[in-house]
Amino acid sequence: MASQRLTHFPRLYKALDANELDGVIGTSAENVVYLSGFWAMTQWARRTPQTYVLMPAQGKGEAAIVTSSGLIDLIADQKPWIDDVRRYGYFQLDRNESVALCDKDLAQLRLMETPEYAGPVEALVAAIRDNGLERSKLGIDEVSISVQCFDQLCDALPDVTFVRSASLLQRVRAVKTPEEIARLRRAAQIGEMSIDAAFAISAEGVSELDFMREFNRTTVSHDGLPVSICIGCGERSAMSNAQPSERALKIGDAIRFDVGGRYQHYRSDISRCGFFGEPGEQIRRYHNALHRGVLRAYDVIKPGVVVSNVFNAVMETVRAEGLPHYQRNHVGHGIGIDGYDYPNVAPNEKGVLEEGMVLCIETPYYELGLAGLQVEDMLLVTADGAETFMSTDGALRIIEP
Amino acid sequence: MASQRLTHFPRLYKALDANELDGVIGTSAENVVYLSGFWAMTQWARRTPQTYVLMPAQGKGEAAIVTSSGLIDLIADQKPWIDDVRRYGYFQLDRNESVALCDKDLAQLRLMETPEYAGPVEALVAAIRDNGLERSKLGIDEVSISVQCFDQLCDALPDVTFVRSASLLQRVRAVKTPEEIARLRRAAQIGEMSIDAAFAISAEGVSELDFMREFNRTTVSHDGLPVSICIGCGERSAMSNAQPSERALKIGDAIRFDVGGRYQHYRSDISRCGFFGEPGEQIRRYHNALHRGVLRAYDVIKPGVVVSNVFNAVMETVRAEGLPHYQRNHVGHGIGIDGYDYPNVAPNEKGVLEEGMVLCIETPYYELGLAGLQVEDMLLVTADGAETFMSTDGALRIIEP
Repeated sequence: MASQRLTHFPRLYKALDANELDGVIGTSAENVVYLSGFWAMTQWARRTPQTYVLMPAQGKGEAAIVTSSGLIDLIADQKPWIDDVRRYGYFQLDRNESVALCDKDLAQLRLMETPEYAGPVEALVAAIRDNGLERSKLGIDEVSISVQCFDQLCDALPDVTFVRSASLLQRVRAVKTPEEIARLRRAAQIGEMSIDAAFAISAEGVSELDFMREFNRTTVSHDGLPVSICIGCGERSAMSNAQPSERALKIGDAIRFDVGGRYQHYRSDISRCGFFGEPGEQIRRYHNALHRGVLRAYDVIKPGVVVSNVFNAVMETVRAEGLPHYQRNHVGHGIGIDGYDYPNVAPNEKGVLEEGMVLCIETPYYELGLAGLQVEDMLLVTADGAETFMSTDGALRIIEP
Repeated sequence: MASQRLTHFPRLYKALDANELDGVIGTSAENVVYLSGFWAMTQWARRTPQTYVLMPAQGKGEAAIVTSSGLIDLIADQKPWIDDVRRYGYFQLDRNESVALCDKDLAQLRLMETPEYAGPVEALVAAIRDNGLERSKLGIDEVSISVQCFDQLCDALPDVTFVRSASLLQRVRAVKTPEEIARLRRAAQIGEMSIDAAFAISAEGVSELDFMREFNRTTVSHDGLPVSICIGCGERSAMSNAQPSERALKIGDAIRFDVGGRYQHYRSDISRCGFFGEPGEQIRRYHNALHRGVLRAYDVIKPGVVVSNVFNAVMETVRAEGLPHYQRNHVGHGIGIDGYDYPNVAPNEKGVLEEGMVLCIETPYYELGLAGLQVEDMLLVTADGAETFMSTDGALRIIEP
């Protein structure tokens, strides 16, 4: 099933073995999707709703989903590969007895006929016990289980050793499956199309908000969702998180897009810059240096390379090509269901690149009084190098007023 | 300043006093906005970035914001009313020395000249100590502080008693300030306009995804963001969380919108239904009963009314008006920065309504084999009753094929 194609099982099982864990419990919206393919809407819309995935180590039992009775329709619709679904809480669902129901409705009814647990912890504890794991060592994604639920879980299972495992799951997620790569590629394409659509309306008096509206309209027209949208013009381009304002475009403005969306739960994060009018020599030189820094990453990236070496190569290139005082604490990061996956492309990151990692490589530069300039690409680490997800050039776009 | 207008200070101070707390620490994206007006982008885009607001009780010290150095530009741009901003972590910001900077840039530079704390907990501990609160009883919003940071905080301040206070803050947020009410009203308007725009494209063969794209385009054109979008046609209308699919509209389909967005950080959650073709007597009767249930709430709601009485009145009306077997565990909820604020309009909720609460009142009905039908309004509890935020009628919209 489609949903099973998100989890990199060999990597997951290896990580559980290496950490002597009998299983791991995903609790964040991201890890629930990753481990089960199940998108539990309330978890994405709010911070407190609880949905879990119990994933035993290989040979240690059957995976289970724990979710609210109110989300059972999404199980029936999405058909996650995990059969053992435990629901908690009351939900009223009526049925017209005189009509033959479609398969989805029948699946919903069957799920509603399973036991109703009092709460998420009761359901999770039952799944753990039914797998004989009540005296085991279990990883738990500590990010999104509520502290109340975690207390209750520890009380209910005093013989389980729980090990915080959000970072373990982040490492597992670093290498993407083909399905994940396809979604990330599409997310990047939607981001680029949206930037292009926004650049296309450039004219004197167009505001950052106008750019954002055009960006967002394009994104949602392609079934993406805007997530973090930074668009700055002129002096505002140097604000690293520039939130679109009424600031209107003037001749002589840099335009910086650093934008991220979501497509089928997978994130994009890309940056392109333009200049409205004729950029001076300094802006051209700086942007060219930043762009060459990103291009340099494509030469260096391949499996086995130490991540800090990518950082060093990018930094050296930017400095050599015209921005000698360039300083950064990272020049990129992994990306997946979360906007920042492992690894961080930073000077102290001694891990190595692996085939199947998807990275953002970026060289932002913020100079108050001058401009903010940035290039950010998304790319895939392949068997022997890097493959870009980008179809547009990272060079500075010069827009005739 | 605008941002100070979000916090209901009398209510906050009273809650702290009643619980003998010397202050409270907001950690979730929602509570950070609520207490300070500061929208910390990374907190909204991901789950792990840490931004806090320390809010001492009245007379117990000065409020402080703790955030990453990388978000300092947003402080300069948004100008939250809290002056004491503590930043942590490295961020590189360059400056063109030859140019006079604008006020925002100067504000950023001043912030970057403040001490750089190693991490969020070091910064928070310093703010607590500088207020002389290192031997106090402090509430902490337990939802979004990472467990690692909470451990570190407890170790650093062994003489502070920390009390879990997410629910205290939820109660404080229940009564809205005029600025909050204005934003919620606008969020509801954007939702309604987006539903109207989507209904307007109804035609045979139009898919749920087409409806969603039109809905989302309208929302983003008005500076809203889609959050939880359930749109179901025909048999899919009975899925409570119907996620838009390729399912194409046919004559004889119910169309159910249960949609929520965000505007200036404040949420909407509304529902309207249509029917493509001539609905039968049963659909008309059921929907009318659900609609009358919501209308009944307007008669009952006023300050001082016990919440469960609203539940009872709505349920009795729906049952009396044509849906005698109607069952629900709630018929609405508060709404604000979070999609579910206090109170839940449920049979066991014995709290009373207060002037300034903003509520969603809803009567969803899901019958497999028939349809999903729903009315959901947003409204304000006024001094002597209820004021709707809706400009459209909740009646079933009959759409001629």
